[in-house]
Amino acid sequence: MRDFLLEEAKMMKYIESKARSVAEFYGYKEIMTPVVESYDLLATKAGEEVRLRMFAFKDLGGRMVALRPEFTPSIARVVATTLRNEPKPYRLFCLGSLYRYDEPQRGRYREFWQSDFELVGSDKPEADAEILMLTNSLMNGAGLKKCLFKVGHVGVLRGVLSEERLDDKVQSAVLQLMDKKQYEDAFGLVKDSGASERCLAVLRSLVELKGCNAFEVVGNVKKCVEGYEKAVVAAENLNRILKLVVESGCEIDTSVEAGFARGLEYYTGMIFEVYVPELDVALSGGGRYDKLVELFGGEPTPAVGVANGIDRIMLAMQEQKVIPKEAEEKRVVIIPIGDGTKAEALRISRELKNASIVVEFEVMGRKMAKALEDADRRNIGYAVIVGKKELDEGKVVLKDLKKREQTTLKIAKLAQAIKS
Amino acid sequence: MRDFLLEEAKMMKYIESKARSVAEFYGYKEIMTPVVESYDLLATKAGEEVRLRMFAFKDLGGRMVALRPEFTPSIARVVATTLRNEPKPYRLFCLGSLYRYDEPQRGRYREFWQSDFELVGSDKPEADAEILMLTNSLMNGAGLKKCLFKVGHVGVLRGVLSEERLDDKVQSAVLQLMDKKQYEDAFGLVKDSGASERCLAVLRSLVELKGCNAFEVVGNVKKCVEGYEKAVVAAENLNRILKLVVESGCEIDTSVEAGFARGLEYYTGMIFEVYVPELDVALSGGGRYDKLVELFGGEPTPAVGVANGIDRIMLAMQEQKVIPKEAEEKRVVIIPIGDGTKAEALRISRELKNASIVVEFEVMGRKMAKALEDADRRNIGYAVIVGKKELDEGKVVLKDLKKREQTTLKIAKLAQAIKS
Repeated sequence: MRDFLLEEAKMMKYIESKARSVAEFYGYKEIMTPVVESYDLLATKAGEEVRLRMFAFKDLGGRMVALRPEFTPSIARVVATTLRNEPKPYRLFCLGSLYRYDEPQRGRYREFWQSDFELVGSDKPEADAEILMLTNSLMNGAGLKKCLFKVGHVGVLRGVLSEERLDDKVQSAVLQLMDKKQYEDAFGLVKDSGASERCLAVLRSLVELKGCNAFEVVGNVKKCVEGYEKAVVAAENLNRILKLVVESGCEIDTSVEAGFARGLEYYTGMIFEVYVPELDVALSGGGRYDKLVELFGGEPTPAVGVANGIDRIMLAMQEQKVIPKEAEEKRVVIIPIGDGTKAEALRISRELKNASIVVEFEVMGRKMAKALEDADRRNIGYAVIVGKKELDEGKVVLKDLKKREQTTLKIAKLAQAIKS
Repeated sequence: MRDFLLEEAKMMKYIESKARSVAEFYGYKEIMTPVVESYDLLATKAGEEVRLRMFAFKDLGGRMVALRPEFTPSIARVVATTLRNEPKPYRLFCLGSLYRYDEPQRGRYREFWQSDFELVGSDKPEADAEILMLTNSLMNGAGLKKCLFKVGHVGVLRGVLSEERLDDKVQSAVLQLMDKKQYEDAFGLVKDSGASERCLAVLRSLVELKGCNAFEVVGNVKKCVEGYEKAVVAAENLNRILKLVVESGCEIDTSVEAGFARGLEYYTGMIFEVYVPELDVALSGGGRYDKLVELFGGEPTPAVGVANGIDRIMLAMQEQKVIPKEAEEKRVVIIPIGDGTKAEALRISRELKNASIVVEFEVMGRKMAKALEDADRRNIGYAVIVGKKELDEGKVVLKDLKKREQTTLKIAKLAQAIKS
């Protein structure tokens, strides 16, 4: 785990504020769930991969708990319990830290930060489209270029496998293997589970079906799975979602991949991940999970969501040399000369803060020359010198450190002078 | 641990934004430290009390780690290592969740949220004054009334005890007992450690010295500890700090308590806690800790800081019925009529969001009447109805749900009409 200091923390906060802004304009309400949750809750429907990598331990009361490795189970719990009787849809937003015991590597840390958007209660393609579009809004907000949305639909693979009567567990195992691109192992498992020759041929073709001409790929997928009714329906669903996105004028570069599966077991429909060319880890990942809320004791509730990696987006911004846009701020140091002027200097600093000016008080007791040198080095715009002689006339000295000018002026006019 | 849903999450975020705003105007830079830290780091100088209540466990690599129970050790680590060569002072700000395995009770949870301000590098009273003043700014920002600052100085008690040659460990044990108001046990320990009769009499008097006339109390403390040179110096230091605060015009209600000690062992100077009459837990607590950075291998570095309990401030706001002030927002629902209008309706919703309007898209596929009823119930201001007939003329229907009026207008004029 690592610290985010000064500049990095600023970038993290910048991305967080962009995520909050997306949440606001799309009508997503923020909720906060605990970092420490019951082990069982978190393990319930996570893939094997995630389960083995949790920070799990017994608390002082002897209960098995773990640090959350993702937000979705906590949100599903809240939806199934506290929000149960609220009218749907719920648009929920979460932002915070998550924990997985991975081998640390570029873009993959044991403590990482995500913003989650979950649209709960709708099974319509416009809900899926909204999640894709708001993810795109976040990438644009962060100033990232050349984002590629890798899109798929687990209903295609599961549709084929379920009509071959492979049970859910085997299906999940097959998808896990495909997620890791261990195709031969996956096909071997399918074969051993008694699937037909046609099925294997279809799966082999699906893995090859991918590309950036989204509608062409989806059309080919539909032809390829002909006869597997559920898989056809899934392909049509994906087609409708992508059509809504494109026809709404939202410019998302997509690559549709028919053999695409994600590590988490709970997805049931459209899935996607977002990449930039500079990084080989996904910045965001999400999809539809229509069965998860039921697992937590709720009513059957369709839902679709996305998790955006805040620290990965930061990494991508650093790679692409994106500089956060900031409102230019007026920063001021206040330097009291001698002990007798400190209280008055503090009073002036309070006044300036009330006028929305960023003020740093000279707390090191340095002489004026030293303090000014330090302010200069830190690129601060103004210094206010509070001396006994000027104070007696209700005045202070204002130094413009960029222009190297100084004026003596009434304290009452100080804020105005700095702001103008 | 608990969730913060909708309204509560909104209040938490409101207080967080106030804390960030105070950080900004006082020139504090945000840093982010990990939730999981090495057990040794966190245990190094925490009081026994905190140490026994940590969520500690072995990670998968066999290292002993714990969830941070406070920010200060992590910050001291950062100051002693990464920031070591940066010129002082550092003004650092942290905001996040902390963990203690306490018995949950009103205002005391196992997961709690704090904003921390640390001013590192100055031993001057104006640094202590700044921390008191910015804490007051935060309380004002949150809209709290009748805040009382309970202020003391550990240098008074430690000054007396150290001149009686009690070693640091015994001093800490005495202060721990006094923090819990177990005075007789504390005095017993002092006596058993070989302190003089005068010392015991002084300690007994100090415990009685408290009150809201700050300068009078401090004056009496000074008289009481006469002859204990270090204690006199401590009282004078507290006097200077409070004088700076008062003379700067900052209105803080203070109650000075000479026998006041805080649970954490690392304080060396001024200490304080903030209360409102409605709650018996402190909203904020802080003080000076001039020795802590050394313990983490850094140079001797004076520092003073405060931790503000975000969830406790929320509780106080709820008790005092403080309503967060918010910019009134224009919220809109967009309802497409029929499948053929959905992409166009999505396009319009993107346009409105770009014009800074909060837009919720109807993703439930409900009929217009149902969707409007729902919008009404949720107190949304406007509905945009996207129908085939109007679309063919480049128009939509805008309903003002408060005034119960509707107009048909060009899509290009929609954002303007909603905003005006």
